[in-house]
Amino acid sequence: MTDFEATRAMFYLPEGVVYLDGNSLGPLPRTAAERAKAAVEREWGEMLITAWNKAGWMEQPSRIGNRIARLIGAESGSVVTGDTLSIKVYQALAAALAMRPDRRIVLSDKGNFPSDLYMAEGLLGQLGNGYRLKTVEPEDVAANIDDSVAVLMLTEVDYRTGRLHDMKALTRAAHAAGAITVWDLAHSAGALPVNLAGAGADFAVGCTYKFLNGGPGAPAFIYVAPRHSKNALPALSGWLGHEAPFAFDLAYRAGRGVERMRVGTPPVIQMAALEAALDVWGAVDMTDLRSRSIELSERFIAGVEAHCSEVQLVSPRDPHRRGSQVSFAFENGYAAMQALIARGVIGDFRAPDIMRFGITPLYLGEADIDKAIEILAEVMADRLWDHPDYHRRAAVT
Amino acid sequence: MTDFEATRAMFYLPEGVVYLDGNSLGPLPRTAAERAKAAVEREWGEMLITAWNKAGWMEQPSRIGNRIARLIGAESGSVVTGDTLSIKVYQALAAALAMRPDRRIVLSDKGNFPSDLYMAEGLLGQLGNGYRLKTVEPEDVAANIDDSVAVLMLTEVDYRTGRLHDMKALTRAAHAAGAITVWDLAHSAGALPVNLAGAGADFAVGCTYKFLNGGPGAPAFIYVAPRHSKNALPALSGWLGHEAPFAFDLAYRAGRGVERMRVGTPPVIQMAALEAALDVWGAVDMTDLRSRSIELSERFIAGVEAHCSEVQLVSPRDPHRRGSQVSFAFENGYAAMQALIARGVIGDFRAPDIMRFGITPLYLGEADIDKAIEILAEVMADRLWDHPDYHRRAAVT
Repeated sequence: MTDFEATRAMFYLPEGVVYLDGNSLGPLPRTAAERAKAAVEREWGEMLITAWNKAGWMEQPSRIGNRIARLIGAESGSVVTGDTLSIKVYQALAAALAMRPDRRIVLSDKGNFPSDLYMAEGLLGQLGNGYRLKTVEPEDVAANIDDSVAVLMLTEVDYRTGRLHDMKALTRAAHAAGAITVWDLAHSAGALPVNLAGAGADFAVGCTYKFLNGGPGAPAFIYVAPRHSKNALPALSGWLGHEAPFAFDLAYRAGRGVERMRVGTPPVIQMAALEAALDVWGAVDMTDLRSRSIELSERFIAGVEAHCSEVQLVSPRDPHRRGSQVSFAFENGYAAMQALIARGVIGDFRAPDIMRFGITPLYLGEADIDKAIEILAEVMADRLWDHPDYHRRAAVT
Repeated sequence: MTDFEATRAMFYLPEGVVYLDGNSLGPLPRTAAERAKAAVEREWGEMLITAWNKAGWMEQPSRIGNRIARLIGAESGSVVTGDTLSIKVYQALAAALAMRPDRRIVLSDKGNFPSDLYMAEGLLGQLGNGYRLKTVEPEDVAANIDDSVAVLMLTEVDYRTGRLHDMKALTRAAHAAGAITVWDLAHSAGALPVNLAGAGADFAVGCTYKFLNGGPGAPAFIYVAPRHSKNALPALSGWLGHEAPFAFDLAYRAGRGVERMRVGTPPVIQMAALEAALDVWGAVDMTDLRSRSIELSERFIAGVEAHCSEVQLVSPRDPHRRGSQVSFAFENGYAAMQALIARGVIGDFRAPDIMRFGITPLYLGEADIDKAIEILAEVMADRLWDHPDYHRRAAVT
């Protein structure tokens, strides 16, 4: 049985804060702070350029990739870290499209994170030649998979509502129609059990600063199914994805396996913090994590619905169709979230009216959930959101 | 007059080391260590998600871009930081090509950093349709600029030899032929005076971990001439380059000016270190820096040539045709560099036979140069390179 008291002790959590935004930016694992300091002072400061060899900086992206692989049911050697999620979406989609040269449609849904759709738009614009992005309602995805689809590109968990796609069934349907799949695990990795190999996924990408607690702007990851690793060519063909980066050849030759998806020089300090953050997962069983997430989510929903008639659940009511977040719609959601944050309960807001709460058992327990419910109830009952300060929109919402 | 004793005191330099590899990875500015720690502990740790507003994380890429702009003669608001140099090359080249839709040739030279050529290869492969990369010898670039060239893509300073292109003359020639220019400033920014606006450059990119001392894997920068900022469309169209990222629209609309060249979530801790590293430049005059660099380089060349007949200068002898590095060819260059490093003189090696030394006046003086000459002379005279340990190639050379 996973010891969630022990995992909680691994995080620094500010006094008096209930943190329900780990789905946006995970909190600071204590070892990540130490490791980042060591990367700066002992490695960069003392070893200078020699740290690329002496401190193992060059292997960092694959070493970290392998640790993430274990959390998402991926084969060893099939995941590499680097860049941002948007860049990795572009790489995966470009490689997938090249594997279906006779097809022109990328199928996605309107619940996908906009940046994924934007990157697809940019790529398809480059390709020209009849390529087209088709977005449908999330519940209509299955019905739209046919033999015109080159790539099915979906985010498993909807960033707004937390709705969970059935990765295995949709991947099977895509394959039956001859399409390739690209799964975005932004709200899945570290949030719930993922089994990429079991689902037969082709490509997957994800970020590490949410449920993996890697720190603000921590690098992304990309998965290429081992069966595709020889055929998947990186459109973003940078020198660290070359077969022999230090030969400095003038022509590109793709490196081995997923290594070819590396591009330029990785952010070493940021990678060091991420690597340390992954230590937290050593004794965590993903099935335990999922049960605990459901338990806490159900408690939160029941409490909020009992005390706040003003808000409406927009996440699926069935916990098995939901990721590890709970979202409520409320007309004055932005202001209400500011009122909550001012009182130490941190969630976030997504346009147009969604109050979003991440449920993260690694560092949240019943007492936190109950406190959040109590304060939300006060904000609603006393209309605490009805204050001009809370209606002024900040740059980042 | 720039006070180079004062700038030297701003760096942490390990005892007994002469660091001649600042052209590969600049050493640790003391304030960068403090700032990275604060970004981890006071911002990520204490402020959590609210740091995006409270700690100004969202504006970091443009704020830093403006500080770099001043060092490369760029207009305010024309530079933004993020991603890696390879990614920025792709963005600049894609945008430049789209501005010359009737032309198909990207002209570059064989002294360009291979990753720039690889990224071009990847992009042109995506575009298909007759697009082609043409690489010529560095000295033949001017003669190959004609009206078939869509984009002239060059690195100003050759990473191996330090040979310096004439940015102003080549840009003028490119424009006269109707071509667009993409300049890579990897070995220029912070190394010598650059005047992008004065040269009429169209696009430029560069990295910040070399002469700008931003730390291992610090993010890259991209410059878009203000006259192009409305027409330059980012092929890598991520959400932070969107006109309104937090509106979460389903379709992409390019943001204002160079802001549209942002892609995904930036590496905040790495950016914080970089921002602090730029403090060093506050009282540095680039003309002073250049004079001092030439003075120290000439001293180094004279000393090495006087004491080491085994090596041959491969950098241009005329200091005005050279960046801020000095390179010598030597058959056993790899082993000789290992022998030097073992004795505290850190330079680096570039295949097939180049020993490369970065000359960085911010933290190097005559005594360092003289010590490096003395030790190199010993390594050569006593054939200290002739030891099996020094011939074993590490992963990173």
